[in-house]
Amino acid sequence: MRISTLSEETGVSVASIKYYLREGLLFAGEASSATRSEYGPEHVARLRLIRALIDIGGLSVGAARAVLAAIDDDAMPIVHAFGIAQHAVTASLVSSTSPSAAAVARIDALKAERGWQVYEQNPGEAIAARVVDAYEALGRPDLIDVLPAFAEAAEIVARADLGAVLAVGADGRTRMVETVVVGTALGDGLFTGLRRIAQEHVARQLGLPGSSLDHPDEPKDDVS
Amino acid sequence: MRISTLSEETGVSVASIKYYLREGLLFAGEASSATRSEYGPEHVARLRLIRALIDIGGLSVGAARAVLAAIDDDAMPIVHAFGIAQHAVTASLVSSTSPSAAAVARIDALKAERGWQVYEQNPGEAIAARVVDAYEALGRPDLIDVLPAFAEAAEIVARADLGAVLAVGADGRTRMVETVVVGTALGDGLFTGLRRIAQEHVARQLGLPGSSLDHPDEPKDDVS
Repeated sequence: MRISTLSEETGVSVASIKYYLREGLLFAGEASSATRSEYGPEHVARLRLIRALIDIGGLSVGAARAVLAAIDDDAMPIVHAFGIAQHAVTASLVSSTSPSAAAVARIDALKAERGWQVYEQNPGEAIAARVVDAYEALGRPDLIDVLPAFAEAAEIVARADLGAVLAVGADGRTRMVETVVVGTALGDGLFTGLRRIAQEHVARQLGLPGSSLDHPDEPKDDVS
Repeated sequence: MRISTLSEETGVSVASIKYYLREGLLFAGEASSATRSEYGPEHVARLRLIRALIDIGGLSVGAARAVLAAIDDDAMPIVHAFGIAQHAVTASLVSSTSPSAAAVARIDALKAERGWQVYEQNPGEAIAARVVDAYEALGRPDLIDVLPAFAEAAEIVARADLGAVLAVGADGRTRMVETVVVGTALGDGLFTGLRRIAQEHVARQLGLPGSSLDHPDEPKDDVS
């Protein structure tokens, strides 16, 4: 297909496609004449991943290039390409302030309890440890008691995440990494929404006062 | 205690305390002379909640006032005060674009599967439904398959959330709502971090290529 069809197919403007070609994010098409190139389905898939990285993952073009290089390096095991993608979409959540040693030790203890083995570079540890620090700073160290339940839930979610990655088939590195990027970045929001719903449900279940489904803002008609 | 001690005790500047008094977020102290007021532990607790709402929950002063009014209204059941707090700390996550009817129906089906009963105003539904729409728009409706696992995990997290709320004791409305605000706003980040750790652990467990703990960036010493 020509560049105009590639643009229609993907919803990415011709100008953006040319920009990604110049920046080396998208590989060149096959030259069919001095001024024309042919593009194929691999360009469609690549463009989708580029837009997922930039629009959904919030990556800069430079950061997107690093993730794409990891996918293109066939010598790099797929799990490391995942790690690089995971780091990239998580970077905006990692603040420059380091967590305290005590908080890191608390997360390390949790990892040991659950038998979790991960590299030290895993971006999740600092994020979790800084929340532990925040609970302490707010005078609410009691909130740390939620850790084991949160960890159990995180493992259930992670199994679903990896299930989605494996479901696309091991041959499609681009699509597997796309799944990591889209699933990780958007999955945070999905979980946030479901947690809000579940909180209200559990509050009712526990019979907190006023938790019937009679809404206080909608007074019932007086039938008298 | 005097206002200067209240400031030291809470880490909130005297100027901010006076501002919260003027804005009606903090109730006045007991006048001990024409120019002096006495403050007590209830002011310390209230100031902590005000800062949690504004600094952690990201609320405006106006939004914080609405949450505080709900706490102060003893006729309002505590579960509704929770709902108002939950809405307030979630507002920044709710975009103005409405989710599609199909996505809302998908979340409604999930609620029915799990037996979740919630008000229509629960802010989580729109958040989750918009992620479902995003999966569709990205050509990845397959990712919706993670929903049941995410919902199971959300309920585990919600039980821990409500456990923390109830652990503070039903008499402390201020502290219960503080727990909702702090636990909801910071808990999102805690879960995000743990999910990243668990993803790497599960990738290893599933034996993805290259997922041993030998790190590729740290070549092993050649012992020859």
